[in-house]
Amino acid sequence: MDRMISMSVVKRLPRYFRYLGELSDKGVTRVSSKDLSRLMDITASQIRQDLNNFGCFGQQGYGYNVEMLKDELAKILGLTRVYKLVIIGAGNLGQALVSYSRFAKRGFEFIGMFDIAPELIGREISGLTIMHINGLKAFLNEKKPDIAVFCLPGESVRDVLDIVIESGVEGIWTFSHLDLKNMGGVKVQSVHLTDSLMTLSYMLNEEKS
Amino acid sequence: MDRMISMSVVKRLPRYFRYLGELSDKGVTRVSSKDLSRLMDITASQIRQDLNNFGCFGQQGYGYNVEMLKDELAKILGLTRVYKLVIIGAGNLGQALVSYSRFAKRGFEFIGMFDIAPELIGREISGLTIMHINGLKAFLNEKKPDIAVFCLPGESVRDVLDIVIESGVEGIWTFSHLDLKNMGGVKVQSVHLTDSLMTLSYMLNEEKS
Repeated sequence: MDRMISMSVVKRLPRYFRYLGELSDKGVTRVSSKDLSRLMDITASQIRQDLNNFGCFGQQGYGYNVEMLKDELAKILGLTRVYKLVIIGAGNLGQALVSYSRFAKRGFEFIGMFDIAPELIGREISGLTIMHINGLKAFLNEKKPDIAVFCLPGESVRDVLDIVIESGVEGIWTFSHLDLKNMGGVKVQSVHLTDSLMTLSYMLNEEKS
Repeated sequence: MDRMISMSVVKRLPRYFRYLGELSDKGVTRVSSKDLSRLMDITASQIRQDLNNFGCFGQQGYGYNVEMLKDELAKILGLTRVYKLVIIGAGNLGQALVSYSRFAKRGFEFIGMFDIAPELIGREISGLTIMHINGLKAFLNEKKPDIAVFCLPGESVRDVLDIVIESGVEGIWTFSHLDLKNMGGVKVQSVHLTDSLMTLSYMLNEEKS
């Protein structure tokens, strides 16, 4: 696989995968880049270019085979395995994530949930009991989760970062406003909520200027 | 202002704004594109190119004036006014958002919170009392929020979409997996949590392939 795929292409792949899943659920077996373009609001040439990156070529006059393309994207996105996730920070956001059923459908399975607040420890959320952060290191060593999810206020991330990195997780999914770089082979993906909201305010402002 | 700024540039602006805010908090008065590059892990030429789009030119041998650039970005991002936000869906995610203090700091103010679940109605979260969705229309007409925030399970969005669009909000910030397009002049910004997680699993898989 070409390793030089740009992140902007990569970030569109989950969306392709979602739309193909919906088509497949509806019993659609093939789709042209033109139809996909209309559905997804991306130009057909962009779609062809994106998918060509991964050797997914549509056939002239036929288009794409929905099931095959979906399976191929699942492989590319690493969705053919199960990931074990541990949540660090069991406040409202952490609780929202473990309660969200769409993750399990994609193979993302929450196996533990940690916090420091006494009133949260021992509470059960979606079948998981919130544990005290003191037990995090032992848990990581024993259960070997693949992904750590940071739902902590900004600076607190620093307190657990070393333990998490050393435990050998493959990836970190973080909601902290702190930018974490890929460290020691651990990949980082951030959700910046404030940035997203500022992008919206840009759009509202642009309209008027 | 040039209206053809690409969304990939726009999406980097909040990050510039954040870093400049941190520099300003530390008392730094000027910064070169080179230093900013090191901090933000973006090439210096990308930074110059991005900011030139908005007429923010650094001076040769001086760099950027931190305070001036930050103020300019605040204007571009529409952060010089206050936005009133209404949350639709007061589950864990909605509760997490209203409790997150960083939004208020940027001028995003939550003024109402709605749900349909009887056990949630009347509960107070961060000073807001959760109201029944039946009262949404009257609330929108009276309080005229600028932004509606959708924290609802996918399909339920359709039940409130028309009311929200008709009420005259400027923007929708949505966490639903349903892709909403800009409609009737209303701008839409989505946070796709599953897509973000799939991007991470791509990165984990790419490493190994």
